[in-house]
Amino acid sequence: MSITSEPDTDTPPLTSAALAADPLTADPLLADPAFPVHVGGKLVVQSRTAVDGPDDLSLVYTPGVGRVSQAVADEPDAVWRYTGRGNAVAVLSNGTAVLGLGDIGPEAALPVMEGKAVLFKQFGGVDAYPVCVNARTVDEMVAIGKAIAPTFGGINLEDIAAPQCFEIERRLQEEVDIPVVHDDQHGTAIVVLAALINTAKVVGKPLADMTVTIIGVGAAGRACSELLHAYGIGDVIGVDRNGILDGSRRDVTEAKRWFVDIGNRWGRRGDVDEAIRGADVVIGLSGPGAFGIDALATMNDGAAVFALANPVPEVMPSDVPSNVAVVATGRSDFANQINNVLAFPGLFRGLLDSGARACTREMKLAAASALAGIVTDPRPDRIIPGAFEPGVADRVSAAVRAHVMDSARKV
Amino acid sequence: MSITSEPDTDTPPLTSAALAADPLTADPLLADPAFPVHVGGKLVVQSRTAVDGPDDLSLVYTPGVGRVSQAVADEPDAVWRYTGRGNAVAVLSNGTAVLGLGDIGPEAALPVMEGKAVLFKQFGGVDAYPVCVNARTVDEMVAIGKAIAPTFGGINLEDIAAPQCFEIERRLQEEVDIPVVHDDQHGTAIVVLAALINTAKVVGKPLADMTVTIIGVGAAGRACSELLHAYGIGDVIGVDRNGILDGSRRDVTEAKRWFVDIGNRWGRRGDVDEAIRGADVVIGLSGPGAFGIDALATMNDGAAVFALANPVPEVMPSDVPSNVAVVATGRSDFANQINNVLAFPGLFRGLLDSGARACTREMKLAAASALAGIVTDPRPDRIIPGAFEPGVADRVSAAVRAHVMDSARKV
Repeated sequence: MSITSEPDTDTPPLTSAALAADPLTADPLLADPAFPVHVGGKLVVQSRTAVDGPDDLSLVYTPGVGRVSQAVADEPDAVWRYTGRGNAVAVLSNGTAVLGLGDIGPEAALPVMEGKAVLFKQFGGVDAYPVCVNARTVDEMVAIGKAIAPTFGGINLEDIAAPQCFEIERRLQEEVDIPVVHDDQHGTAIVVLAALINTAKVVGKPLADMTVTIIGVGAAGRACSELLHAYGIGDVIGVDRNGILDGSRRDVTEAKRWFVDIGNRWGRRGDVDEAIRGADVVIGLSGPGAFGIDALATMNDGAAVFALANPVPEVMPSDVPSNVAVVATGRSDFANQINNVLAFPGLFRGLLDSGARACTREMKLAAASALAGIVTDPRPDRIIPGAFEPGVADRVSAAVRAHVMDSARKV
Repeated sequence: MSITSEPDTDTPPLTSAALAADPLTADPLLADPAFPVHVGGKLVVQSRTAVDGPDDLSLVYTPGVGRVSQAVADEPDAVWRYTGRGNAVAVLSNGTAVLGLGDIGPEAALPVMEGKAVLFKQFGGVDAYPVCVNARTVDEMVAIGKAIAPTFGGINLEDIAAPQCFEIERRLQEEVDIPVVHDDQHGTAIVVLAALINTAKVVGKPLADMTVTIIGVGAAGRACSELLHAYGIGDVIGVDRNGILDGSRRDVTEAKRWFVDIGNRWGRRGDVDEAIRGADVVIGLSGPGAFGIDALATMNDGAAVFALANPVPEVMPSDVPSNVAVVATGRSDFANQINNVLAFPGLFRGLLDSGARACTREMKLAAASALAGIVTDPRPDRIIPGAFEPGVADRVSAAVRAHVMDSARKV
């Protein structure tokens, strides 16, 4: 399907003026322009068909719908044709790691999941349903995801704390035959890899020779590292608050094993400054102050810094030393915004349209390559497309579709 | 809010002609006019706001949405203002008792739940989200309902088999602070009671003197009996496949205890014919052939028969003997259609708008009274409004709102 969507103009959001005019809705929070657009929620569930009388009712509902349900009972694949399942994604969160706000719970996560659903529709034409749940444990999250799977064509896990998010994604994917993607991991990884592919072109270095230092090894950090490695980046060094992850450390958790087993191939040891020294790329996925500006001067020439803490990057683009040729951030007001919205709408569009049973590493690599390829002439201030450039999701979804092997298709 | 809704014209359903013209979509099922309206599903999730550029994005999503989420974390009641929760209902089903089709599973239930959501929107302005789940046990259903509750302002249980449905509803309502309503029970009960209130006027009998025989004591049968009794109907006699439920029987399950403990106050015993003899009202909630036409001639004068099996009623209106003054069915092509759509949209509209924490018996009684009151001059062929009469849901919702006591409000 083509990816276009218009907002529902029947039920427009309230404006600040309308709210201010109604004494019942007076709320000092509404002075912040972010609040009026959220009043009453950002989504509606709309019908694709009118029910204007008994004849319509007898087709849309009983008795006609009974024949449709019986057809699905007789031939399970009919669910993909005669329901919305094939275009529906659950945005499933327990609110344990919401943006930079931490564990604020499912109700407080709901505005974010609604926003995600808005972007799913606008950029991918996907019907995304927020499902914010009271569930703390891995077992509970897997059970809920498994339970609701019959309603959806895919599950987007969102804002779930590490390390539980890794096991939830892995175990849930084993239980269901629809793709399960933790976007905080893989959406970020796809966009970071795409940016890195174009960075290599800008600075004229082979990816296989690059050393990438990742500072902050939570959900996004590990997924980025794995995807960069799979694409062929020379080495990935992980850094947590105790310094470089290396085999001599006694505090390497299961979730961080990758960084000593696969990453850090030369066995580097030391603190964050040591990790930055001689690196070609530094990727910050932590917060302001995680590394110093002076340390960046010890990177190789033609260095790149992706300072992805949001809303305040680890380092401001104007502050980097002269050996840093490329800077990216998570912010829309600087060049090179690393924004998940470049990945997840097209990724899920492609997964849904191809009937994929899972989202494989090859599909993520294909998505990253396609995303990088949209920038035909990479420059230091253009290593990644802008979030609102037309055609991004179409290109990404086409690449994903092309990589869904017959063995991975469900219909 | 006012209850109006237009279908989403951006993504109209496919027509038979369009489908027939596309060889990829050729499917003999499409010859049945019920199928084309279900192709691709009957719902879309639409945005209430456009995201036209980075400025919009920064309000609808990060960083602006973070301030909204923080506000909800700081003040939990803000979720009702700054998300869609207050207008969102989960239509939760495990597909174990779908229409008359039985246990066909969650995928096959999805067309019905989508249809229900269409009616929720059209008649009640409610955003209803189908949630069809892989879950068989009471414990699983309660756990799922409890988990997803933070996303919704109410939960409509649907097409869940008896007797599990009773315990699921009761236990889930104990666990969550939003209303939980099994519509197959209470929607039916509200409409049946409304029809009975007007029947009493038509036939000139006091409700307190009426004996009502209910044939089929599953989910709807028990809920109808309880609500009729609560309203003051003289006696309710339950009949299952083994005859009248009375205290001497050794096969009375927990779910049927009501009929011997509260109903059947004179201790009647015998078969279905004995249960019908001398009754003022017979309500069929079973299937064709559950009782004979000849038996109806043994009812009291001014009798009423609600033959609610669908799509084939237990008895056709044209076949009843002359002592039967009023006949109702579940069908739209006869007078007096007992249709849940008369109740659930207005019921949930009222529950949502009043911030009710639960749906009490008083609210159901109020809904039934309001529904009956819409018919200002009851006649044998008009004891209940038609499904498409304007204002039905508004009247029902107003009555429910008026009965939500302060103690039952959550905000």
